[in-house]
Amino acid sequence: MIALTLVGIGTGNPQHLTLQAIDALNAADVILIPRKGPGKDDLAGLRREICKRVLRSPGPRLHEFDLPVRDVKNPDYQGGVDDWHDAIASVWDAEIRAALPDGGNIAFLVWGDPSLYDSTMRIAERVRARMTLSVTVIPGITAIQALTAGHAIPLNEVAAPFVVTTGRRLRKNGWPKDADTVVVMLDGNCAFESLAPEGISIWWSAYAGMGNEIRIAGPLAQVAEDIVSTRSQARSMHGWIMDTYLMRRAHESKSEA
Amino acid sequence: MIALTLVGIGTGNPQHLTLQAIDALNAADVILIPRKGPGKDDLAGLRREICKRVLRSPGPRLHEFDLPVRDVKNPDYQGGVDDWHDAIASVWDAEIRAALPDGGNIAFLVWGDPSLYDSTMRIAERVRARMTLSVTVIPGITAIQALTAGHAIPLNEVAAPFVVTTGRRLRKNGWPKDADTVVVMLDGNCAFESLAPEGISIWWSAYAGMGNEIRIAGPLAQVAEDIVSTRSQARSMHGWIMDTYLMRRAHESKSEA
Repeated sequence: MIALTLVGIGTGNPQHLTLQAIDALNAADVILIPRKGPGKDDLAGLRREICKRVLRSPGPRLHEFDLPVRDVKNPDYQGGVDDWHDAIASVWDAEIRAALPDGGNIAFLVWGDPSLYDSTMRIAERVRARMTLSVTVIPGITAIQALTAGHAIPLNEVAAPFVVTTGRRLRKNGWPKDADTVVVMLDGNCAFESLAPEGISIWWSAYAGMGNEIRIAGPLAQVAEDIVSTRSQARSMHGWIMDTYLMRRAHESKSEA
Repeated sequence: MIALTLVGIGTGNPQHLTLQAIDALNAADVILIPRKGPGKDDLAGLRREICKRVLRSPGPRLHEFDLPVRDVKNPDYQGGVDDWHDAIASVWDAEIRAALPDGGNIAFLVWGDPSLYDSTMRIAERVRARMTLSVTVIPGITAIQALTAGHAIPLNEVAAPFVVTTGRRLRKNGWPKDADTVVVMLDGNCAFESLAPEGISIWWSAYAGMGNEIRIAGPLAQVAEDIVSTRSQARSMHGWIMDTYLMRRAHESKSEA
């Protein structure tokens, strides 16, 4: 019997760890650390750094393993993701059996929070189809909270709704119908450029919560170009980027008044 | 000069505190603890309990004060909230000046995260109009993360959007147009009852993250009644309730297939 705990670690700031997360990591027999391959190992490094800081001695064993790579050329996005999750689940299955042949507690560090645009819970479901496994989730600070905290802005307006969506959807469908506030995740191509910028303000952060956090905010018409070029430079410099943004548009009732 | 730090403390589980939150509380000269009046002081009690656990000695001074009460009978919801925030800002202004006549660092513990359906940032803005004040925000675990962690479910479907809205809006506008996943906050009246339940699943939690957490999940048609009665009993027993829920509906593409 394996007890798997998915531990939200926040967005790259080791100070984002909760007391609950620290206890959960220390309660594990083994912590799985995935390696994503050359040039993408900032995250593996961060996981090791967090473990070094918070694990009490004698602590859990760290068990590193290589992740399969997603076929980004697969034109069927959903099918490609499914195949990739299956491949990862196979690797997890083998690694967990190797690390804990007699069962025990295994923990896995998840960037941000395990519920938010993260595949770990879906992979764990697939692993559960292969072995007796319980899954516990420890919440973590999300990129959305890191974004709004950095800019010191509320996420929602008073008693108003907001939509969280992806760059791909925003570009395809335009501004959502249900809300004047939109948070955009997983946007590799600055989808805000596809909007008519009048009346829209944007708060953008890259590496939110980390030492190298970058923030740009203002009317979209004025700051869009700056965000595009800053993002491109930061991405070249670090080899990877993690960014998110919130946009708010002036109320329609205001413009009618 | 006053430096105000709004510290997200999570949803009532002292283990939700982040290392960053603990450091921010310890760096304060004074921590403001609001009292909301008889029968609503579970939250003040929780704030005191958290301070007791994490403050290092000699720690910040705790400065307790009474909050004004919102006129819930005001038919103009938005105007009533504005007046109430103004009244709270006046009290904060006076209490901060009394506690730190020569300036310094003041911290305020915010349930959940300061960005999410919380008025503290708006009150701080009003206080900033009255004195020289810097505002820093420390992110915290939100009720949404506590909800999804407790049920061990993803918040979004793969690369799909979600809407966060209020009970009032859901009841008025029905299911949002933009998403198959909806999270409902600030719902005092079980607005899910206003929906045709077919094809909708619900994950409901009260006191998410706390020792007395209650969870109910299932097809809305089957569990709605149970949620209504469980909620009502829990509210009577504790004198207050904090609950949230996530609903997902079957994809339209599936029902077309």
